[in-house]
Amino acid sequence: MTVRVGIVGAGMIGQDHACRLSRALAGAQVTAVADADPARAALVAGSVPGARTLGTGLDVIGAAAVDAVLVTSSGPSHEEFVLAAIGAGKPVFCEKPLAPTPGACLRIVEAEMAAGRRLVQVGFMRRYDDGYRAMKRAVDGGLIGTPLLAHCVHRNVASPPGYTSDMPFTDSAVHEMDVVRWLLGDEVTALSVVAARRSGYAPDQLQDPQLLLMETAAGVHIDVELFVNCQYGYDVRCELVGETGTVSLPLPSGPELRSGGVAGVPVPADWRARFARAYDAELQDWVDSVRTGQATGPSSWDGYAAAEVAHAALTALSSGQRTPVRLKGRPSFYA
Amino acid sequence: MTVRVGIVGAGMIGQDHACRLSRALAGAQVTAVADADPARAALVAGSVPGARTLGTGLDVIGAAAVDAVLVTSSGPSHEEFVLAAIGAGKPVFCEKPLAPTPGACLRIVEAEMAAGRRLVQVGFMRRYDDGYRAMKRAVDGGLIGTPLLAHCVHRNVASPPGYTSDMPFTDSAVHEMDVVRWLLGDEVTALSVVAARRSGYAPDQLQDPQLLLMETAAGVHIDVELFVNCQYGYDVRCELVGETGTVSLPLPSGPELRSGGVAGVPVPADWRARFARAYDAELQDWVDSVRTGQATGPSSWDGYAAAEVAHAALTALSSGQRTPVRLKGRPSFYA
Amino acid sequence: MTVRVGIVGAGMIGQDHACRLSRALAGAQVTAVADADPARAALVAGSVPGARTLGTGLDVIGAAAVDAVLVTSSGPSHEEFVLAAIGAGKPVFCEKPLAPTPGACLRIVEAEMAAGRRLVQVGFMRRYDDGYRAMKRAVDGGLIGTPLLAHCVHRNVASPPGYTSDMPFTDSAVHEMDVVRWLLGDEVTALSVVAARRSGYAPDQLQDPQLLLMETAAGVHIDVELFVNCQYGYDVRCELVGETGTVSLPLPSGPELRSGGVAGVPVPADWRARFARAYDAELQDWVDSVRTGQATGPSSWDGYAAAEVAHAALTALSSGQRTPVRLKGRPSFYA
Amino acid sequence: MTVRVGIVGAGMIGQDHACRLSRALAGAQVTAVADADPARAALVAGSVPGARTLGTGLDVIGAAAVDAVLVTSSGPSHEEFVLAAIGAGKPVFCEKPLAPTPGACLRIVEAEMAAGRRLVQVGFMRRYDDGYRAMKRAVDGGLIGTPLLAHCVHRNVASPPGYTSDMPFTDSAVHEMDVVRWLLGDEVTALSVVAARRSGYAPDQLQDPQLLLMETAAGVHIDVELFVNCQYGYDVRCELVGETGTVSLPLPSGPELRSGGVAGVPVPADWRARFARAYDAELQDWVDSVRTGQATGPSSWDGYAAAEVAHAALTALSSGQRTPVRLKGRPSFYA
Repeated sequence: MTVRVGIVGAGMIGQDHACRLSRALAGAQVTAVADADPARAALVAGSVPGARTLGTGLDVIGAAAVDAVLVTSSGPSHEEFVLAAIGAGKPVFCEKPLAPTPGACLRIVEAEMAAGRRLVQVGFMRRYDDGYRAMKRAVDGGLIGTPLLAHCVHRNVASPPGYTSDMPFTDSAVHEMDVVRWLLGDEVTALSVVAARRSGYAPDQLQDPQLLLMETAAGVHIDVELFVNCQYGYDVRCELVGETGTVSLPLPSGPELRSGGVAGVPVPADWRARFARAYDAELQDWVDSVRTGQATGPSSWDGYAAAEVAHAALTALSSGQRTPVRLKGRPSFYA
Repeated sequence: MTVRVGIVGAGMIGQDHACRLSRALAGAQVTAVADADPARAALVAGSVPGARTLGTGLDVIGAAAVDAVLVTSSGPSHEEFVLAAIGAGKPVFCEKPLAPTPGACLRIVEAEMAAGRRLVQVGFMRRYDDGYRAMKRAVDGGLIGTPLLAHCVHRNVASPPGYTSDMPFTDSAVHEMDVVRWLLGDEVTALSVVAARRSGYAPDQLQDPQLLLMETAAGVHIDVELFVNCQYGYDVRCELVGETGTVSLPLPSGPELRSGGVAGVPVPADWRARFARAYDAELQDWVDSVRTGQATGPSSWDGYAAAEVAHAALTALSSGQRTPVRLKGRPSFYA
Repeated sequence: MTVRVGIVGAGMIGQDHACRLSRALAGAQVTAVADADPARAALVAGSVPGARTLGTGLDVIGAAAVDAVLVTSSGPSHEEFVLAAIGAGKPVFCEKPLAPTPGACLRIVEAEMAAGRRLVQVGFMRRYDDGYRAMKRAVDGGLIGTPLLAHCVHRNVASPPGYTSDMPFTDSAVHEMDVVRWLLGDEVTALSVVAARRSGYAPDQLQDPQLLLMETAAGVHIDVELFVNCQYGYDVRCELVGETGTVSLPLPSGPELRSGGVAGVPVPADWRARFARAYDAELQDWVDSVRTGQATGPSSWDGYAAAEVAHAALTALSSGQRTPVRLKGRPSFYA
Repeated sequence: MTVRVGIVGAGMIGQDHACRLSRALAGAQVTAVADADPARAALVAGSVPGARTLGTGLDVIGAAAVDAVLVTSSGPSHEEFVLAAIGAGKPVFCEKPLAPTPGACLRIVEAEMAAGRRLVQVGFMRRYDDGYRAMKRAVDGGLIGTPLLAHCVHRNVASPPGYTSDMPFTDSAVHEMDVVRWLLGDEVTALSVVAARRSGYAPDQLQDPQLLLMETAAGVHIDVELFVNCQYGYDVRCELVGETGTVSLPLPSGPELRSGGVAGVPVPADWRARFARAYDAELQDWVDSVRTGQATGPSSWDGYAAAEVAHAALTALSSGQRTPVRLKGRPSFYA
């Protein structure tokens, strides 16, 4: 059985995913595309044999030729489309963030629970990255003992136009918020935000870099450097420090060039290069889960939990205070 | 259009490729399988929805439901099946070696030329490995200047049962024989073989490790350490030394574990782990080429050239002498 | 001219330094040794040709055969001996900490200023480590742009007996307190301390690991992980993050061993192994400075400044609050 | 006791050593200097308190104020000065090569044996490099099993003026010739030389790069890439391959700079930077051995053995043939 996928949102990530589904992954076919900008939708549909453009995201979700839905529209529209997919009983992959607010995420969680089965996968692709997966195996296998601390770095070359002061948290650090929960099997319970010395390369009114300090229920402290205008490359790091050892995310493998007095390896230019395979793997896993009916990827609960952490980060950012994360109790549905 | 693939040979690599085609790649469907051992064929066919077992490889090649053929049978049978596929006008992917002797390879080359279009891709998957590709970009981009030398290492944990003295060359080093031709855009013209101190872990009658010293038309010298019982891991290395710098294949990226006084990264256990993604990429490229009608991967000429180099290596092995490689002139068909 | 050195304090570091001065460095001779434990002093004196044991540290300082003094006694006794050396007009090298309190350090500073010339060098040996020096060259050379952040790690295998809760700051982190001042050419103005999840390997009543978060006058934030029972090795790291790049302290160079599926390099066992050459270099620099009369190493002002930072850390530790560092204005004498 | 050292030869390496002895090492004093160029001798003597210029090397060797001799004159003059020092019963450190021909080296060996005690240390400083020493510990400790192969690289940025075709062997590879003997505890018995593709940066009439292939009595094969105009840095590598693992010389530790899309570490510029500490350690060991009367460093026999290997390399270079190394039997004196 080939999964017929409808795509809601034909921006860059939607285009990338459409390309993946039709050219690099098994078992899926893109059959319908919609976008607020019809021309953009037509462009994607035209690049995929057998796909056609529909008027709206809801049209895509409702189409008979669509078995499962990929939501890659703008964040504020996620809730409507994901709820519609749940309502239609169709599996839905939603790019992160699941929704802009914890409340919106909770409404999705509740709708999914009401539907009685897991229909939603959230686009936390780092869980599919080989490096993070190997780290998780190391921790779960006891190779570093009980985890005590984590150090993370999240650097981008330059922030895109329109990047606002909340986005280092809602857009960038949301990945760390999810991946440390997953690596540690633990919940973030409090956090604070520290403004570091401001880079002259940061746009006006953007504090950059910043430090995010998180604490988990088990007492693990996680520091995250967020620096979205670091100029030199896309550099994501993570070290888990345990009672007997540490494990670190590697720099992606690249050829070593010795030239001009330097032995150098490349730093990726951006997240598309760095996580290309993780994106492949998460979407293949999603397609497979649609075929088997067994959703196993990051859940809407994970999307909600990350949203609560991000929400607390915005509170901490404005208050300057250590801020608790007010996470609801996890329903057994998501155990 | 979905490419319907028939598989001839259901051993380990055939099983791996069947799994790839049906679960990890886009645009292909396995429809028929044959193997000298019908039970093995049935096992593979049973694991792939829509595939069925046929009596012989020739049945697979001739089947109406087969658009393209994957030859993963034993080396000596390659010639028959590849020629049959060419005869049927069907694209064929043949695992390396293309055929055991230069003569057999030449018959394939001639048949393909007679057919008037490129139908054959040979399974030199290293050309699809990210590390080797980055090296090629570095060389072609002038980052190391004119290449002068190459140093290669090819180590396996342990040689499998039935591994004979010719196999370090025909089975293992054939990858280096191909990949240096490709990296350098040059042909191997002579070589010699040196027996190193024998490892006590080598099976009786197997000389291990050995050194293979190759020279190209342009004068580049390439040394290859072949050590198929190195015990500690699957370790493939390649350094190109140019007039102004060098570029090296990286160890695959893995998490760094600091524990017990050591900062360590994993060495892969075997070629399946090391080159999993290269196999994915080569087969996806093949499927894509079948769909577009444009074969671009390693050609039957590449298979022939590697076979000539391997043949010379066997001569050098028995004679102990520097041995010329008697390569035919390259037809414009393969330019 | 050979500098005749008197050693006050014959514990482990005193023994190491005596050995250095007599067997590895140029231009010095140990002539007198004293220790609260006369047997220990005799042991050191006996191992160095030409050295003799004197009754007290003050006897050593006053001896005619002593040109310069090395204070390696217990921390609380430093003030008395350093002041005595200043009083005798003799150059004095004092192991860190210069003195246990900012007040005691200030008395040394004032005495030295009253003496009218720099007589004191403090044992902040990291400033002589090749790795830190290369980092300083990189920063001063503009290779990373304006520094914005620093990340430090200070891990020991296990805390020694008698190690108390203040010692991660006064004994261990004091090195980071000094070296970041030196690297950045900046002063620490505030800090806070965070207790991380406690390791089960930490002795009772020791909070381990901890995070120290420092801020400088220029706004640079520095996080330091202090973990003195990390089990796996002595691991000191430092990364400076600037506007256009970062520079990191390397793991000390060690042979790479590939064995049993791992490519590993050694992590040092302790600070003696890690900084052996830095100790050599700092003492040679001190001996040279005695010969030339030009003290250039870490000054008593540096000792005072680090003591103020450590003092604030202890306050922050007990209060749980962000705590300002009350540094006096730097006299032109130390400009 | 301070060792009073006389220096014969005040070129670059003589100047470096004079500086070491007077400013960085313990227990030595330079008292006399001679050079074929008196002005150069005067320059060195003037930079070292207490040293004076003498007319000839023989004057230095005979001087009452000289306890031990450092021979850093041109290679062809080594034999005369070393023999004179032996004749005077004075310990002598001789820079490599001990002498230009095996015959000259043998005359030194015989004179030393006649003198009845070891008086000669040869300047094979790599034996004092931390990296090589750690490799030797790994091999001797059984960490890689029985050694089977070694791969070496010896690259210089550019060959100096006057560098002739024999010098890659007598001047550069002589270090590998010695260090593999020492690492393996084995003798080189045969070798061959292979001319690689010539670099356009090599001076006229210099074949560069070249490959030197050596075999030992135990059957270990060692390949050495010699490339003295590699442009990018001074890069010395060595990997020992054993039955169960491998150990490799590390790149010297340097700070990692991430900037402009590259994570880079520095490659040393030349041998002075790369082996500065090995030179310190070898000379300190020599001074210590003079004080204790126990010579333990590389012996005149080691100098002779390396000369035989270099001699065979020159024969192989001109004949193009595999060439045996005609080493005499090792006298028990050098056991």
